[in-house]
Amino acid sequence: MNGKKITVLIFILSLSIALVSGCTKKIAPEESGEKVVDFALVIHGGAGAMKKGLMSEEKEKAYKAKLTEALNVGYKILNEGGTSLDAVEKVINLLEDSPLFNAGKGAVFNSEGMNELDASIMNGKDKTAGAVAGVHHIKNPISLARLVMEKSPHVLMAGEGAEKFAVENGVKLVDTSYFFTESRWESLQRVKKIEKLKNPIFEPAEKKESKFGTVGCVALDKAGNLAAGTSTGGMTNKKYGRIGDSPIIGAGTYADNNTCAVSCTGHGEYFIRYVVAYDITALMKYKNMSVEKASDEVINKKLKAVGGSGGVIAIDKEGNIAMPFNTSGMFRGYVTDKNEPEVKIYDE
Amino acid sequence: MNGKKITVLIFILSLSIALVSGCTKKIAPEESGEKVVDFALVIHGGAGAMKKGLMSEEKEKAYKAKLTEALNVGYKILNEGGTSLDAVEKVINLLEDSPLFNAGKGAVFNSEGMNELDASIMNGKDKTAGAVAGVHHIKNPISLARLVMEKSPHVLMAGEGAEKFAVENGVKLVDTSYFFTESRWESLQRVKKIEKLKNPIFEPAEKKESKFGTVGCVALDKAGNLAAGTSTGGMTNKKYGRIGDSPIIGAGTYADNNTCAVSCTGHGEYFIRYVVAYDITALMKYKNMSVEKASDEVINKKLKAVGGSGGVIAIDKEGNIAMPFNTSGMFRGYVTDKNEPEVKIYDE
Repeated sequence: MNGKKITVLIFILSLSIALVSGCTKKIAPEESGEKVVDFALVIHGGAGAMKKGLMSEEKEKAYKAKLTEALNVGYKILNEGGTSLDAVEKVINLLEDSPLFNAGKGAVFNSEGMNELDASIMNGKDKTAGAVAGVHHIKNPISLARLVMEKSPHVLMAGEGAEKFAVENGVKLVDTSYFFTESRWESLQRVKKIEKLKNPIFEPAEKKESKFGTVGCVALDKAGNLAAGTSTGGMTNKKYGRIGDSPIIGAGTYADNNTCAVSCTGHGEYFIRYVVAYDITALMKYKNMSVEKASDEVINKKLKAVGGSGGVIAIDKEGNIAMPFNTSGMFRGYVTDKNEPEVKIYDE
Repeated sequence: MNGKKITVLIFILSLSIALVSGCTKKIAPEESGEKVVDFALVIHGGAGAMKKGLMSEEKEKAYKAKLTEALNVGYKILNEGGTSLDAVEKVINLLEDSPLFNAGKGAVFNSEGMNELDASIMNGKDKTAGAVAGVHHIKNPISLARLVMEKSPHVLMAGEGAEKFAVENGVKLVDTSYFFTESRWESLQRVKKIEKLKNPIFEPAEKKESKFGTVGCVALDKAGNLAAGTSTGGMTNKKYGRIGDSPIIGAGTYADNNTCAVSCTGHGEYFIRYVVAYDITALMKYKNMSVEKASDEVINKKLKAVGGSGGVIAIDKEGNIAMPFNTSGMFRGYVTDKNEPEVKIYDE
C-alpha cells in the first residue's frame, strides 16, 4: 500500500470515528480547561422505550413545551446570577408539579395504590448532599431533600421520619389525593392485571410499562459551581418498600466542582450496583476522561453490557454537556448563555 | 554532602517511611498478582474513640473473645470450601446475635425508643447486592439483605415493606423486645438528658457516645470470589428515619472480584457523600493502587481532611488485607489459611 492510499484510509477511518462518536453534545472543546459558557443547565424527564410514532403528536408537543418551560426557568435564575443549586431545585419543582413526569404530581402508584416519592440533591461546591425516600405527603420532594442537606446533619431520611422533619421545618404536607392522576391509576390496574395472569411478582413492572419517568437537572452557574438533583415516583406496582437509585448519592445523583454534576434515570438496581453517578466522576478524576467520554463509558459500555437500561445527564466545570442513554429515547434538553433551549426525545 | 552521607540519609528516610506506613497488614507482596493465601476473612466491630485504659479489662476480653469466635466460624466455612458469601453472612450473624455490638441483638435505640436496623451484602463474583433499611423485627438483617439479593429483583428495601418481603420468604419476625439491652437503653436516656439540657437536636448523638458499633465482614474464598457485608443499629437517639451508609451499596459496602471487597464503619453521612466503599475499588481499578494504598488514601487522607471519622476493612483478590481507621480504635481481626486469628482494638 502506498503513502497516498494510507492517507485516504486514515481519513475515512477518522471520519467514521467522528460520526460514530457524535452522540453527545460538545459545547466546549474537550480538555480545554477553560469555561466556554458562563452558565449552563441540562434536564431529563426519564429514559425508556420511546420509539418515534408511538406517542401522539399532541403528547410529544406537551412534553417538549414543558421541558422548554423548565429550561427557561433555569436560564432566568442562572442568567440573573443565581446559584446552580437554586436553578436545579426550581427547575425540578416545575417538573414535579407537572403530571407528565413520574415525580411529584405525576408519580406512579405502588402496589398498595400509594404514591411513594424519592429525591436527592447535591452541591458540588462542598459535596454536601440531602435525600428523602418513601415519602407520601410531600408536594416537592427535591425541596425537602435540600432541607435535609441544609438544615440537618443527615444525608438521607426515609418515610414518616422524613415527613416529621418536613413538618418541623415548616413544610406543609399534602393529602395523598394530590398525587392522583387517572393515567397513572390506569397503569397500575393494567400492571396488576398482567401480574394476576402471569404471577410474575418479581418482574419489574416498568419493563412492561417500558418508560422511566424520573426527572433530573444538573447546572453550572456563573460562579463556577455545579449542582445536581433527581426526583422520582419510582416504579408502577412497586413492592416491599423498594428504594431505587434516585435518592442514593453516588448512584442516582452526584456533584463535585472538580469533576462534574450527574443525574441518572433508568433501571435503578443497576445504577446502584454500578454506582453510576459517582463512577462518571471517578473516571474523570482518576482516568482524566472528559465528561462525554466518562458518561458514554458507563452508560453505553458498562451498563449496556449487563443489561442495565437508562441514561444520564452530566455537566462539567467548563460547561461541557453529555446526555447519553442506551434506551430508544430520553426526554432531555439543555440551555446555556450561548444557546437557545434545545429539547429532544428520541435518538437523533 | 558526599555520596556516603546521601546513602545514609536515604536509608534513614526509607526506614521512616517504612515505619510510618506500617498501619495496614500486608500478607501478600504488593502487586504480585498471585494469590498467596488460599482464603482469608476480615471483620470489624466498629471504629471510634476507644482509648486504651478506658475499657475494663473484662470488657476488652469479652470483645476479643467474640471477635475470635467470629473469625473461627469464618475460617471453618472457608477451609471446608464454603463460599465467601456464606462466610460473610454467618460471621455477621454471630456478631448480630451478640449484645456487644451495635447490630442485631445489641442495636442502639432511636429517639422513639425503637431499634432500627440496616444491613447490606454484595457478591463480588457478579456484583449482585441486597440491602435492608429501617427494619424493626428482623433478628439477622444481613440474612434478609441476602434474601433481597437472591430472591428479588431489587437491591434495597425499607421499613414495613422489607418485613413483608421477609415474611413472604419464610423469615420469622421477632418481637421488638428481643433487641432490648439495659446498656443501650441507658445510653439513650443519657443522650436524651444531654439533648434536653443543650437542645442540640442536630448534633449527632454518636459524637457524644463516641463509638460506632457497626459490624462488617469481607472474605476471599478458595474459588477466588470476594464478598462483603455490613450490619448496624445506626445511631443512638437517631431521628427522622435517618439512613446511614451501612445499607447503601457503594457507601458502606462494596465487592468486585476485579478489585476488592470493602465494609465500612464510621460517621455514615461522610461515607455516603464520599462513596467510600466504591471509591476504594475505583482507586484500585483506575489508578492501579494496591488495596492498602487505596484504603489508606480514602480513610486517612480524603475523609480525615474533612473530619469524616471511621474506618474500613478491605481484602483484594490476592488476599491482601487493609484495616485502616482514623479514630483511636477499631474492633478488628483477620484470619487466613496461613495465619491464626488475630484480633486488635487500638492503634497498635
